[in-house]
Amino acid sequence: TDSYSLLILPGDGIGPEVMAEVRKVIDWFQANRGMRFDVSEGLVGGCAYDAHGTPLSDETMAQAQAVDAVLLGAVGGPKYDNLDFSVKPERGLLRLRKEMDLFANLRPAQCFDALADFSSLKREVVAGLDILIVRELTSGVYFGEPRGIFTEGNERVGINTQRYTESEIARVARAAFELARKRQGRLCSMEKANVMESGILWREVVQKVHDEEYPDVELSHMYADNGAMQLVRNPRQFDVIVTDNLFGDILSDAAAMLTGSLGMLPSASLGAPAANGRPKALYEPVHGSAPDIAGQGKANPIACILSFAMALRYSFGEGQAADDLEAAVEKVLAEGARTADLMGPEGGTPISTSAMGDRIVAAL
Amino acid sequence: TDSYSLLILPGDGIGPEVMAEVRKVIDWFQANRGMRFDVSEGLVGGCAYDAHGTPLSDETMAQAQAVDAVLLGAVGGPKYDNLDFSVKPERGLLRLRKEMDLFANLRPAQCFDALADFSSLKREVVAGLDILIVRELTSGVYFGEPRGIFTEGNERVGINTQRYTESEIARVARAAFELARKRQGRLCSMEKANVMESGILWREVVQKVHDEEYPDVELSHMYADNGAMQLVRNPRQFDVIVTDNLFGDILSDAAAMLTGSLGMLPSASLGAPAANGRPKALYEPVHGSAPDIAGQGKANPIACILSFAMALRYSFGEGQAADDLEAAVEKVLAEGARTADLMGPEGGTPISTSAMGDRIVAAL
Ligand SMILES: CC(C)[C@H](C(=O)O)[C@@H](O)C(=O)O
Ligand SMILES: CC(C)[C@H](C(=O)O)[C@@H](O)C(=O)O
Repeated sequence: TDSYSLLILPGDGIGPEVMAEVRKVIDWFQANRGMRFDVSEGLVGGCAYDAHGTPLSDETMAQAQAVDAVLLGAVGGPKYDNLDFSVKPERGLLRLRKEMDLFANLRPAQCFDALADFSSLKREVVAGLDILIVRELTSGVYFGEPRGIFTEGNERVGINTQRYTESEIARVARAAFELARKRQGRLCSMEKANVMESGILWREVVQKVHDEEYPDVELSHMYADNGAMQLVRNPRQFDVIVTDNLFGDILSDAAAMLTGSLGMLPSASLGAPAANGRPKALYEPVHGSAPDIAGQGKANPIACILSFAMALRYSFGEGQAADDLEAAVEKVLAEGARTADLMGPEGGTPISTSAMGDRIVAAL
Repeated sequence: TDSYSLLILPGDGIGPEVMAEVRKVIDWFQANRGMRFDVSEGLVGGCAYDAHGTPLSDETMAQAQAVDAVLLGAVGGPKYDNLDFSVKPERGLLRLRKEMDLFANLRPAQCFDALADFSSLKREVVAGLDILIVRELTSGVYFGEPRGIFTEGNERVGINTQRYTESEIARVARAAFELARKRQGRLCSMEKANVMESGILWREVVQKVHDEEYPDVELSHMYADNGAMQLVRNPRQFDVIVTDNLFGDILSDAAAMLTGSLGMLPSASLGAPAANGRPKALYEPVHGSAPDIAGQGKANPIACILSFAMALRYSFGEGQAADDLEAAVEKVLAEGARTADLMGPEGGTPISTSAMGDRIVAAL
């Protein structure tokens, strides 16, 4: 059979710990499903800075461009807080997104039944929640020029530029419409067209792509501030949401927290298909590097394992294997296996990062 | 006694209805507390466009500049959705903010005890919640140049500019520190300094104002995406939050919705002191124009009445009167008076907009 090339970038904080559990899952699929993974490993973020003085070396960047999929743990930590902007851990991640042109960031916000009581929201508001936020990831204010801190008269001014071309909007809209078609067929686009011209263009282009190519999908538009309200009020009204890079950053984090399952949520960042037909792709958990619990075996590896499930589905065309892996996760949760982050007020004994990985492999 | 000049701009949708109830409150204070209000009225938003072809006439703008305080209902409605950007109802509001230089927008997010079960969040997460978001209101991406939709090669590009000077950041930071001092003494500043240079300058200036002028206030910094998460997870961790115009728009709406009291929340937008020592000021409810229920006597007038209470406190130095008015509102809620938006699943009979206004006046 075909072999799948995978670059693993564990990164900082709890990244290496959770990635070790993904390794077990990969080994299981190799041993039991006849899949072949060609796995390499590299550095990104603070650890890359420590080793090479840059949060992402050119060699690792080139490797990422060459593989079928990149799997990333997390980047950042207090140790790197005072580094210059240009070499901060985050720049490694942003360089990967930009140079691989990963324009569509898929962030499912799913509430796991076994964990519904964990949400700060009422069970009846979030039980069964399953929405997907598609965030534009390679443009907008994250990358627009001019940017910087300049001197004007006798004071400084900080400037960033929100910037979207029609084609940038259209391609992420298409990705979102395609996903909506495979789900409940509803897409809500969010911007601030009442205040920002870039939002007016956004709304117009999304509408045009809809009318010309996806008239079967139900499209609505919402101002992003109202979107934030509606996510809090009644998140289940949404199926797929598409929004820009900065709104997507904020709204997807709010949506993730609604589920009560933050340690469980994966993400995929997809680009255009490479020569072999597979999209450029990077997978990573939604949670951060959690430096406060790093190295203690307390981290929940599920978000990273589910990110690998997304890789099976979107990069390797192994939909069945992805389903099986997701079912294994649901099974161990239903059986009551809990890492420390999943302990409720009732208490109980949490299992370690590695015990959770073992349980999931056993459930496969 | 001194007379207080007040310009009332009811605006669109439910604006006129809720403002009629504020009039009753004003009359009560004139009749019973010896206060003198010099009240004028004008048009803003869609109704101003209908009358004059502009969402805010120069005459009304000049009046707003001359009075002690402006009280605004709400602007906008579906009828105006397809108007050109430059004459949309929102432009009237944005012009008031900008020309009156109302740089500090105070948005309390308070959970009323009688309504805690209304929140989509669990009672134990929101009961007693009382945070204050201070949003910068006259700069940032709302007003930065260049802006517009331009042609580049053979496609269009939408551009907006995020732009903050040191003095713009410092003055809103000072306003927030002053407010924090009068509350629990804690301020959290939110930006995306990990991604945006304007955020780096923001963080640096807020820190400097703290160190030099407000070392007694406890200052923390948080990335805005994490801020959105923390507001959902545990909003009571905050006392005062200060953030920029766009983040403030999104985060304050999310925070307002957390409380379950959206129809109850006022806001104040304050500028520098005018010649008479009073700050330029505009007060408005956080909710919108709610065109779906306009003209039916269903709207909740409390947010607008509490906005007037903020005017009593911040513009007229009538702190005692403001306390009394707020107490009257709490009293009628505790007695069970509910407009339609406050009806729980248990049902009951809602009272009308005007009955609620009468109850509050009676409670005074
Ligand atoms: C780490 C940071 C640069 C990043 C972002 O702002 O995009 C993160 O918040 C995310 O959402 O992936
Ligand atoms: C109506 C609109 C222009 C306004 C804004 O975006 O500031 C509103 O959402 C607000 O928060 O007051």
